[in-house]
Amino acid sequence: MISDKRIGVLGGGQLGRMMAEAANRLQLAVHILDPAPQAPAKQLLAAYPHVHASFSEPTAIQQLAAECDVLTVEIEHVDAKALAQVACPVQPAPSTIALIQDKLQQKRHLRSHSVPVPDFVECASVAEAERAGEAFGYPLMLKARRLAYDGRGNAVARTADTCAQAYGALGSGDAQKVGGVYAERWACFRKELAVMVVRSADGQVASYPVVETVQRDNICHLVLAPAEVPSSVADEARRVAEMAIKTLEGAGIFGVELFWMEDDSVLVNEIAPRPHNSGHYTIEASETSQFENHLRAVAGLPLGGTALKVPAAVMINLLGGPGLEEAARASLSVAGATLHLYGKPEARVGRKMGHVTVVGESVAAIMQKAQPILAAIDATTTDAAAAEANVAGAPSAERPLVGVIMGSDSDLPVMRAAADVLRRFSVPFELTIVSAHRTPARLTEYARTAAQRGLRCIIAGAGGAAHLPGMVAAQTSLPVIGVPVKGKCLDGVDSLYSIVQMPRGIPVATVAINNNTNAGLLAVRILGVRDSQQLAAMEAFLDEQEAEVMTKIDRLAKVGYEDY
Amino acid sequence: MISDKRIGVLGGGQLGRMMAEAANRLQLAVHILDPAPQAPAKQLLAAYPHVHASFSEPTAIQQLAAECDVLTVEIEHVDAKALAQVACPVQPAPSTIALIQDKLQQKRHLRSHSVPVPDFVECASVAEAERAGEAFGYPLMLKARRLAYDGRGNAVARTADTCAQAYGALGSGDAQKVGGVYAERWACFRKELAVMVVRSADGQVASYPVVETVQRDNICHLVLAPAEVPSSVADEARRVAEMAIKTLEGAGIFGVELFWMEDDSVLVNEIAPRPHNSGHYTIEASETSQFENHLRAVAGLPLGGTALKVPAAVMINLLGGPGLEEAARASLSVAGATLHLYGKPEARVGRKMGHVTVVGESVAAIMQKAQPILAAIDATTTDAAAAEANVAGAPSAERPLVGVIMGSDSDLPVMRAAADVLRRFSVPFELTIVSAHRTPARLTEYARTAAQRGLRCIIAGAGGAAHLPGMVAAQTSLPVIGVPVKGKCLDGVDSLYSIVQMPRGIPVATVAINNNTNAGLLAVRILGVRDSQQLAAMEAFLDEQEAEVMTKIDRLAKVGYEDY
Repeated sequence: MISDKRIGVLGGGQLGRMMAEAANRLQLAVHILDPAPQAPAKQLLAAYPHVHASFSEPTAIQQLAAECDVLTVEIEHVDAKALAQVACPVQPAPSTIALIQDKLQQKRHLRSHSVPVPDFVECASVAEAERAGEAFGYPLMLKARRLAYDGRGNAVARTADTCAQAYGALGSGDAQKVGGVYAERWACFRKELAVMVVRSADGQVASYPVVETVQRDNICHLVLAPAEVPSSVADEARRVAEMAIKTLEGAGIFGVELFWMEDDSVLVNEIAPRPHNSGHYTIEASETSQFENHLRAVAGLPLGGTALKVPAAVMINLLGGPGLEEAARASLSVAGATLHLYGKPEARVGRKMGHVTVVGESVAAIMQKAQPILAAIDATTTDAAAAEANVAGAPSAERPLVGVIMGSDSDLPVMRAAADVLRRFSVPFELTIVSAHRTPARLTEYARTAAQRGLRCIIAGAGGAAHLPGMVAAQTSLPVIGVPVKGKCLDGVDSLYSIVQMPRGIPVATVAINNNTNAGLLAVRILGVRDSQQLAAMEAFLDEQEAEVMTKIDRLAKVGYEDY
Repeated sequence: MISDKRIGVLGGGQLGRMMAEAANRLQLAVHILDPAPQAPAKQLLAAYPHVHASFSEPTAIQQLAAECDVLTVEIEHVDAKALAQVACPVQPAPSTIALIQDKLQQKRHLRSHSVPVPDFVECASVAEAERAGEAFGYPLMLKARRLAYDGRGNAVARTADTCAQAYGALGSGDAQKVGGVYAERWACFRKELAVMVVRSADGQVASYPVVETVQRDNICHLVLAPAEVPSSVADEARRVAEMAIKTLEGAGIFGVELFWMEDDSVLVNEIAPRPHNSGHYTIEASETSQFENHLRAVAGLPLGGTALKVPAAVMINLLGGPGLEEAARASLSVAGATLHLYGKPEARVGRKMGHVTVVGESVAAIMQKAQPILAAIDATTTDAAAAEANVAGAPSAERPLVGVIMGSDSDLPVMRAAADVLRRFSVPFELTIVSAHRTPARLTEYARTAAQRGLRCIIAGAGGAAHLPGMVAAQTSLPVIGVPVKGKCLDGVDSLYSIVQMPRGIPVATVAINNNTNAGLLAVRILGVRDSQQLAAMEAFLDEQEAEVMTKIDRLAKVGYEDY
């Protein structure tokens, strides 16, 4: 109805299956080329003829092309030459697929278009690899040019002594198949990031938010959306990813893997010319999924929105192995979790059998509620791997939403009441000392990183020349609540004036002198703007307060004022 | 993997198709009984055998049961007697399906369990219908007991004179088939509401949020989620809906249609023992869709969460007719819109061919961005119907998020600055006068309905004995920003103290005297807690402010302080 184009897909695995889900909703005809008659994608497509043959077999590709109006891929390891010879359009362009198949050519292409990538050099021999080691230092990453995925085709030389061994490990496969070796400068990254970019038939590109990918044994374990990175880094990651995809030809979705480096630069690791594991979260969390946008691009339809429709999402891969079934079952009892099983017949250890996407208020909150799923997976991996994964960036404690700060520990007795209110409303918070006059650098650091760290509101208390709330407000875009603390002279009016009389441009939400209870309650009301449960809790609190006074009114009426 | 139970579904239309989508994700085997070999549901289920026969044919039902471990339905007009005789379990219970098929029995059952329903009485003759008219008044609703849907089987007698005619219209069908007639007191409802309720195999029930359904020509046109109703009405609607489903036997999802009456009571209109059109929005907007929760209930798996994962959603039905294709295409360019086409071969006028769900920040905001879809539909309906639909509850103007109120119009020159800031940040707001001392009733009404009306924050300015901000804060759970307005005496310190020195329990976020700019900016920071675009806009504003001062610093350095 929206398009009559028959779309042929090379490959019928889970990526094809999730494309099929989107295609069915849009009533788009999809024909699958895959050797398995019951391939995951074919299971969902009863109404169309499929080709049961290898997606790297030229005659089968010809046959698919004869039946379809446009071809696309769910895997890049296809016969790009055969694709270049079919009569119908292919998206993305066969030249793009061929370029990406050869990772050395891919890197050269990106570098020639000024897309930042790690330093690399071709190594035709062990001696060249050793020279690369001298130039780049150790550890040194050696990579096969072709047929690499999920860490296969990579070898690490920790020292010059092991360079020959690492080189041999890569060459020991079919040298023709792997197409040679190149060396890359070791990427001392802070986090691995990924950005999905969709390119329309007319060359427009749009990117999804930056996510963090957490690997385990070189296979994607978790995807955290959005990535917790400074907004400048997120902007740079999207810019670099879009820039990289603009250099390629053809329409479709692309997965761009990135490194966030120690110096805050962002480098492209590699590109996938198809839907990508790091974009599965988009099915539940984004305005339009990566699969639907891929089909729209391929069919020449308008692209859909790429914004998140929920605050955050975490994707957990389910791999073949003893914990698989337990993890899948555990997901059924996690609120906001959606289970995807791929319909693959055998759960070979390490094979991607499904995934779970959990949505929620923040990545930290999701990680907490997803614990039963992660525990089921961890129970079957070695303790060492589990420990490593914890270090690798899986936050487990609840991340604070409110920062309670005070100029001095002498303010603590007064500030405590705010903490008590937050605890009562189950709002995660942090409480610390930040002195405007004695720790000005700390104040700046605290205020400038507050939003990035996930805080949504700050309560700042101070006495006398109470500069803390206003100076914090000047360096954050979060709402800041100021509490004037009563000192020994002037009854707190000094700090009240100092806090409330802010200049135009920088507001501080000031509450009554010493009234930290109200500061806490105001913070809860502010969080209620985002979280309807907090709004309801505040309504209940007001009702309770009213009931308390009503009881006193009753008692006063019964007992009389003399005996009250 | 999570369940080996083969699930047989009677009916293979769009509800079966959307069940199949969920089943495929969960790797649950679904066998469809439907006369059409290419029924919408079968198109998505290539791996399982189906039965090509009518879902009301006893032998076909037997055959399906022989192949499956549990049966369920996507339509209630099935042979309930045949279902009662199969060997495997049927969910919900055949007795429940039979009860619901006879709408008079359904009403009697609900009334006998104290579930509130409109007054009704059986009418075995025209004379009895006329007696019902005397008792209930006119207009009088006459309904066929059986085989009614989308307004068919209903007839309205506007006056006593037309009672016989209306009665005849219902009886004119196959009297055996319709099973008799009953009369219902005309429901003068404020809105039509609906609640999806899921009942697990062990009898636990959980409900989805209350939605508003907007009908056009007796067919569901729009579903607005959540419904804009007072929270007490929403609570009552869920209570009544859950209460009704608890009286029924068997597991699965149920759609409960409700009337919100003028006196704020909530009455059950009727119940569907299956997924329901009013629950389609749950696919994109809820933690777990109605279809997945139905399958989970039927298969004896744990139920999934029923909370909204996005702030709001609007579902738009796409009916067969000339505007269908245009509306479907228009949806592709609406951010947050997801198109569902059902794969039905012919687009008979009025047939449900698909739907679009649009998610967003609020129903009002969604209605605005969905205009191109609605316009495509409206272009093909009569103007009268379109006008009626507009009246029926489709808000189109942008709903305010911030309320700016002042005690007197003399405060306007000062308050205007807050409005200017909100306009600069594109925040929809309303501005009006609410006087604590001169219009106390209006104050209460304003404060108590503010959250329901979609406001997220209130800015209240007042001078002198400035009670407005505090009195508003006492009657809402929203954050209230107080602006002390400087009067003729005391320099505004009178109103500052009156606003800021609130008692413990009711905070007011006080800003500097007369500083409405900061009140507006604080409101934007508060909205930033929910809306990351606002947060980014505030960051940009702070940068801009800094740049302005930096320019002055440069100028001062260049020009020197004498000539500055």
